[in-house]
Amino acid sequence: MFQYWTNLFRKYTSEIGRAGFGGMDNPGYRTGSFDGLHHPSDDDDDEMVDIAGATLDFSTTDDVPPLSSGGYNEYGTSGVGGRAAGVNGNGPTKLVDPLEDPVPGVGTYEDFNTIDWVREKSKDRDRHREITSKSRQSTVALLHSVSDAFSGWLLMLLVGLMSGALAGGIDISAHWLTDMKEGVCLNGFWFNHEHCCWTSNETTFQERDRCPQWKSWAELITGATEGPFAYIVNYLMYIVWALLFSFLAVTLVRAFAPYACGSGIPEIKTILSGFIIRGYLGKWTLIIKTITLVLAVSSGLSLGKEGPLVHVACCCANILCHLFTKYRKNEAKRREVLSAAAAVGVSVAFGAPIGGVLFSLEEVSYYFPLKTLWRSFFAALVAAFTLRSINPFGNSRLVLFYVEFHAPWHLLELAPFILLGIFGGLWGALFIRANIAWCRRRKSTRLGHYPIIEVLVVAGFTALLSYPNSYTRMSGAELISELFNDCSLLDSSQLCGYQQPSNISETGVGNTLADRPAGPGLYTALWQLALALVFKMMITVVTFGMKVPSGLFIPSMAVGAIAGRLLGVGMEQLAYYNHDWIIFKGWCSPGADCITPGLYAMVGAAACLGGVTRMTVSLVVIMFELTGGLEYIVPLMAATMTSKWVADAFGREGIYEAHIRLNGYPFLEPKEEFEHNSLAVDVMRPRRADPALAVLTQEGMTVGEVESLVESTHYSGFPVVVSQESQRLVGFVLRRDLLISIDNARQRQEGVVSASQVVFTEHAPSQAPDAPPPLRLRGILDLSPFTVTDHTPMDITVDIFRKLGLRQCLVTHNGRLLGIITKKDILKHMAQIANRDPDSILFN
Amino acid sequence: MFQYWTNLFRKYTSEIGRAGFGGMDNPGYRTGSFDGLHHPSDDDDDEMVDIAGATLDFSTTDDVPPLSSGGYNEYGTSGVGGRAAGVNGNGPTKLVDPLEDPVPGVGTYEDFNTIDWVREKSKDRDRHREITSKSRQSTVALLHSVSDAFSGWLLMLLVGLMSGALAGGIDISAHWLTDMKEGVCLNGFWFNHEHCCWTSNETTFQERDRCPQWKSWAELITGATEGPFAYIVNYLMYIVWALLFSFLAVTLVRAFAPYACGSGIPEIKTILSGFIIRGYLGKWTLIIKTITLVLAVSSGLSLGKEGPLVHVACCCANILCHLFTKYRKNEAKRREVLSAAAAVGVSVAFGAPIGGVLFSLEEVSYYFPLKTLWRSFFAALVAAFTLRSINPFGNSRLVLFYVEFHAPWHLLELAPFILLGIFGGLWGALFIRANIAWCRRRKSTRLGHYPIIEVLVVAGFTALLSYPNSYTRMSGAELISELFNDCSLLDSSQLCGYQQPSNISETGVGNTLADRPAGPGLYTALWQLALALVFKMMITVVTFGMKVPSGLFIPSMAVGAIAGRLLGVGMEQLAYYNHDWIIFKGWCSPGADCITPGLYAMVGAAACLGGVTRMTVSLVVIMFELTGGLEYIVPLMAATMTSKWVADAFGREGIYEAHIRLNGYPFLEPKEEFEHNSLAVDVMRPRRADPALAVLTQEGMTVGEVESLVESTHYSGFPVVVSQESQRLVGFVLRRDLLISIDNARQRQEGVVSASQVVFTEHAPSQAPDAPPPLRLRGILDLSPFTVTDHTPMDITVDIFRKLGLRQCLVTHNGRLLGIITKKDILKHMAQIANRDPDSILFN
Repeated sequence: MFQYWTNLFRKYTSEIGRAGFGGMDNPGYRTGSFDGLHHPSDDDDDEMVDIAGATLDFSTTDDVPPLSSGGYNEYGTSGVGGRAAGVNGNGPTKLVDPLEDPVPGVGTYEDFNTIDWVREKSKDRDRHREITSKSRQSTVALLHSVSDAFSGWLLMLLVGLMSGALAGGIDISAHWLTDMKEGVCLNGFWFNHEHCCWTSNETTFQERDRCPQWKSWAELITGATEGPFAYIVNYLMYIVWALLFSFLAVTLVRAFAPYACGSGIPEIKTILSGFIIRGYLGKWTLIIKTITLVLAVSSGLSLGKEGPLVHVACCCANILCHLFTKYRKNEAKRREVLSAAAAVGVSVAFGAPIGGVLFSLEEVSYYFPLKTLWRSFFAALVAAFTLRSINPFGNSRLVLFYVEFHAPWHLLELAPFILLGIFGGLWGALFIRANIAWCRRRKSTRLGHYPIIEVLVVAGFTALLSYPNSYTRMSGAELISELFNDCSLLDSSQLCGYQQPSNISETGVGNTLADRPAGPGLYTALWQLALALVFKMMITVVTFGMKVPSGLFIPSMAVGAIAGRLLGVGMEQLAYYNHDWIIFKGWCSPGADCITPGLYAMVGAAACLGGVTRMTVSLVVIMFELTGGLEYIVPLMAATMTSKWVADAFGREGIYEAHIRLNGYPFLEPKEEFEHNSLAVDVMRPRRADPALAVLTQEGMTVGEVESLVESTHYSGFPVVVSQESQRLVGFVLRRDLLISIDNARQRQEGVVSASQVVFTEHAPSQAPDAPPPLRLRGILDLSPFTVTDHTPMDITVDIFRKLGLRQCLVTHNGRLLGIITKKDILKHMAQIANRDPDSILFN
Repeated sequence: MFQYWTNLFRKYTSEIGRAGFGGMDNPGYRTGSFDGLHHPSDDDDDEMVDIAGATLDFSTTDDVPPLSSGGYNEYGTSGVGGRAAGVNGNGPTKLVDPLEDPVPGVGTYEDFNTIDWVREKSKDRDRHREITSKSRQSTVALLHSVSDAFSGWLLMLLVGLMSGALAGGIDISAHWLTDMKEGVCLNGFWFNHEHCCWTSNETTFQERDRCPQWKSWAELITGATEGPFAYIVNYLMYIVWALLFSFLAVTLVRAFAPYACGSGIPEIKTILSGFIIRGYLGKWTLIIKTITLVLAVSSGLSLGKEGPLVHVACCCANILCHLFTKYRKNEAKRREVLSAAAAVGVSVAFGAPIGGVLFSLEEVSYYFPLKTLWRSFFAALVAAFTLRSINPFGNSRLVLFYVEFHAPWHLLELAPFILLGIFGGLWGALFIRANIAWCRRRKSTRLGHYPIIEVLVVAGFTALLSYPNSYTRMSGAELISELFNDCSLLDSSQLCGYQQPSNISETGVGNTLADRPAGPGLYTALWQLALALVFKMMITVVTFGMKVPSGLFIPSMAVGAIAGRLLGVGMEQLAYYNHDWIIFKGWCSPGADCITPGLYAMVGAAACLGGVTRMTVSLVVIMFELTGGLEYIVPLMAATMTSKWVADAFGREGIYEAHIRLNGYPFLEPKEEFEHNSLAVDVMRPRRADPALAVLTQEGMTVGEVESLVESTHYSGFPVVVSQESQRLVGFVLRRDLLISIDNARQRQEGVVSASQVVFTEHAPSQAPDAPPPLRLRGILDLSPFTVTDHTPMDITVDIFRKLGLRQCLVTHNGRLLGIITKKDILKHMAQIANRDPDSILFN
């Protein structure tokens, strides 16, 4: 285990030394310029733009940016496939048919654009069909077909192994750096507090966290272990380390991978719904996110590592996808793997593989076929077991918080559990509002211009207020662990500071866990917890959204666990002193262990997490995997349901959806119903007052005319009709494909000039013998565009967009083309209905 | 608990007495006539036709049967909604607009037809919109809106409670009747063996299944408890009871509810995919299935009650849906509830709520939105806890087979586990082939004409062969329970007949579970198990598909568990005698407890069940819920994966899909990819040689012309075009709606004669002043029919059908209507590709 830890450390430091401070030459990311947006290269993972930042004006990316000439030559060669070629037949002008040799770049996507799910899935089926038909011919092809079928499983295995190993490394490093804030191990600075004392011979079981090898900073600097001076030195060192870690984290993020900040889940949701954000899941993001996550967690900020672990796992999956052609070249297939990776992330975060799969299904994924469910489960299991074999917690437990309760709960306890649910719901709704307001302020005011100062101020403030209170000084995960704990008689923790029963037989023989009156230790703990609750509730609002990796799971759970424990102890004392009340009669007699405050903490944690994220099944299953008993599902379910209902009453959006909307991503929420009764004709463009739709005719237009039409508009695609008069629809052609093909033909084909005819029909029309050869573009024409009629209700249209993953849909009336609806049009329409600014939707 | 049991028994007997033998008057089911098909009444759950039987010729139901005049007057009044009315505007001839007063019957479905998911969901959204908009007006409407929102949850609660209670009753009754085959309790015949001896004072813990109150039949009849004569009497009585129970079961099914036979899962899958089978989930099916399930299980046939419990839960849900307008009137909403009910069924069958939800998601459901996931989970939990409070197993365990293993497994053991997976896959594939061949034989030969004799022969044969072997004599669930069991030193079961270690210190102090050499008891057990394995493998093939309720879970698991236990004991003995072999070195030294035969049994059970049903995640999760430890997921997963791969190599279909295909239901398998590269134009009708498509024009046709067109064809719907020349599509009208509306207008509207014009346009055209008033039918016109172009690849078309739940789709070319594709066309095309008989698809 130490080997892992030291290897990881060595790897990190060498990485930093090589790439970081010496003068890093990240090939894709050019500070200050966003050329990457307009010059996408084949290796599309190394380019980044600061999307969450306030410095970039997005008005230019409103639609597809103009193509820089020649820039597409670097593209991959995955063009539109063999089927279109078969349909095309053999035209008379072979030489100029672009299908014979697919033009590079056709069929790929620009950054910040939505993919066409139907086309991607169809492409993959074509590929699969080809492999299957070939496999009947030779043994090599058969082997290729088998290896192709199993490549998905192999990829899952690799994702599981890599994510599990990284999560283990992160756990160990974060543990070490967190302890570093308080002191250092003399045996070797790379030991954390616990390991330092494990290796010592002078450690006893009772005082297992004290050993001479471990020196607090005061001890090391002043020689004194106690007294006000030592306390001040420790306090100062704590703040200094916190500032240093947070400074490092934010600087690394700013300098090398701006996408590494935040939790990443809103962006991953958007990517999984079919959006392209180049570099968001690239190797630089992975490296920087892994390092800065450790630093951010260790700095004591009120954030967790669970959400970012999902991002880390998705980065691993995306990078590993490059090993397999099947996944590298197909955006839809790659998203299947990313869905599984989201499950892996939660699996390693909590040690809950089933919960992770359900989390991916419920919260993150958009397109989640059953095959992916099974593979996700496999990957999640592999990751969980990899993590366990690294054993970062040193207890060979799979789960993050292992809890074991002994007493059953009583039906009447559902009342306080529902109360916790209401608290969780209120807190969730409030948190989302406050956090979004704060993030909007950061985006729109000068606050966003100084991210480093912001992080330093918040980190300093957090450290300053955290140190005096032992419940805020410890890390979030430790705090939750302690709050979930069921007190036994021997427990020395302050939270278990009950008065020991003077006479054991008085409280019932053998029942050592009976309810006891609270002692002074417990009262102190309660005060500290109440202060910690207020502090955590405040600081988390400003922390989430800063330019460091930050997860919300742990802070939300901590808030809920504190509230739950407070209520639990309150109930316990109430029952102890008033066991003759009618509500306690019969089940809470003296000497009975009737109230378990740890269970209340757990229920509270679930309620608050549910209120913030609006998770339901996955939350309950994750919690179930922590306890392992179906017994406690009912309280958890009651609290989660209440919490969701209460929070939904204040606003239907969870924190991730709210952040998606804040950033203007094109995300069609699959859970929400479209409630308005508008028709397709109300949403489509052109509107009544607008000029007519820009269309191409299937023949009769020259290259020059097409080019000028494309130049004069900014649409991403153009319908092709039989003739301007009939407006009967033939197909749809994408702006990008059109420009690339024309440019390519002009450069590589003889005789293609502005006066050449552009022909989308199957056979070239007869033309004057001296005319230049026509440019045949049927190959890039989508012959099966989706259409709806103008009378189609929008709820059905939205359903079609969601279920099929469309980018655009054409609108017809009695067979004539009338207009077009894009995903952005729908989102703008929905924003309008909800009285929001329709221009908040930034991308298409 | 006894109260439950006796109440249930009283209820059953009174039910049988009242409705059954005295002369039952089931209003919907008319033996021998299938009028119900042509006269659907409003209470649509009481009509049945023998779909699985061989006596019915389905050629008449190939398309929608002709409507009998006047029959639709009884229909519900849920017509096409308010939106179409708004679009329609105010025409000049108000009186004849059918929308003012929706014609009863419009918008409902015939039996054995596919529903239109898009229309149903749109209808529900309209309803919801109306309630929400009203709720802003008054407090009563607000309360109505809130109660509407919570009615789903209330319904789930009721489904959970009812299914849990019924499952508890079934468990208790089946236990009692099973024991009845061996003897009777003198304290009261309604006690089963265990309860009889519990109430006795003379029972000791060691001999807890022997008490003077419990008399075997031999003891009661001859007075002798031992000896060959007593054995023969007991043997005979066992066979007599088995024959009696199975005779009762098959007679009840034949007489009152033919739909109650089989497991029901194939039909439920089809219903959930959008098919209508009236009466399949009705109250008679529920009552008869509950009773006959108990009888069938008790008769000792090789069948389980787990699959039928899913059917029982779905019946409960369907019946309870009638309490809520929201669910009664909407086929799509009702299917959401049925999906949840499928989860409930598995939840009560195994005590595994999470596994149940995943089973519904993976295996049964077609349309499963996330909201349903959360509600299913709630219902499954309620049902599981209801069942536990009834406590049918008397051990307050939630799960059917509670297992607790102590020893971890070793990585090398994966080899035998994978071997079990291969066995499971082979057995699964073989079983499906054999069973389908047998069922096809039953359908096509005279065998199917004598279902009662068939059941009696199989039951008699089973009883005859089962009695001598104690492992086949006990019920399937008991057998599995015993095979899963981990032997402790004190265990007196024959399976634990190891040689006791002569010297405890020799085999390692304290390790009482160390591997031991097999004793004579174990060898006998192994022989019996091997015989039982062969017997079970044979008899299950002929049992599944008979006219009694029969599940496959328990028999498949029993086969796997026997094979697994045999292999486990074999491995254990191999390791014991050869612990110096290199593969056992290091982890299987003498005195260590290295092999757990019970775990092998469990892995084998999972492998066989996986091979037969092709379940994956849900199977592993159900098994995980039985053991409660993530520890054993890896072996289960390895075996299940292997089993699925092996079985898939012999055929992609699981047993349920195979039975769906055998019965010719229109089910578009959502898991299978469409692999062929045909285009929409290849599948659509009319084919090239056929006459042109029958279309209506939006104006200019008379009532008489429309009627004669409809009469001369058998299509379920007709496209409406602008004119015969242009073929530009306006909309689509259903045959059923058209006939109902014309008939209604002829009866209720003055002046509508055969010469009246049929008008689908918004405004009535000008016509001669002496002409009869036109019949305006825009109200029944679907103005947003789905269209694809002729070039659309079939894989995309199939995807659209699956995801949107379409019944039909129109095909256009350059804006002109070309043809139509129905679900049946697609299924026939797929059958053709797979070289199967396309006419095997019976329904549309």
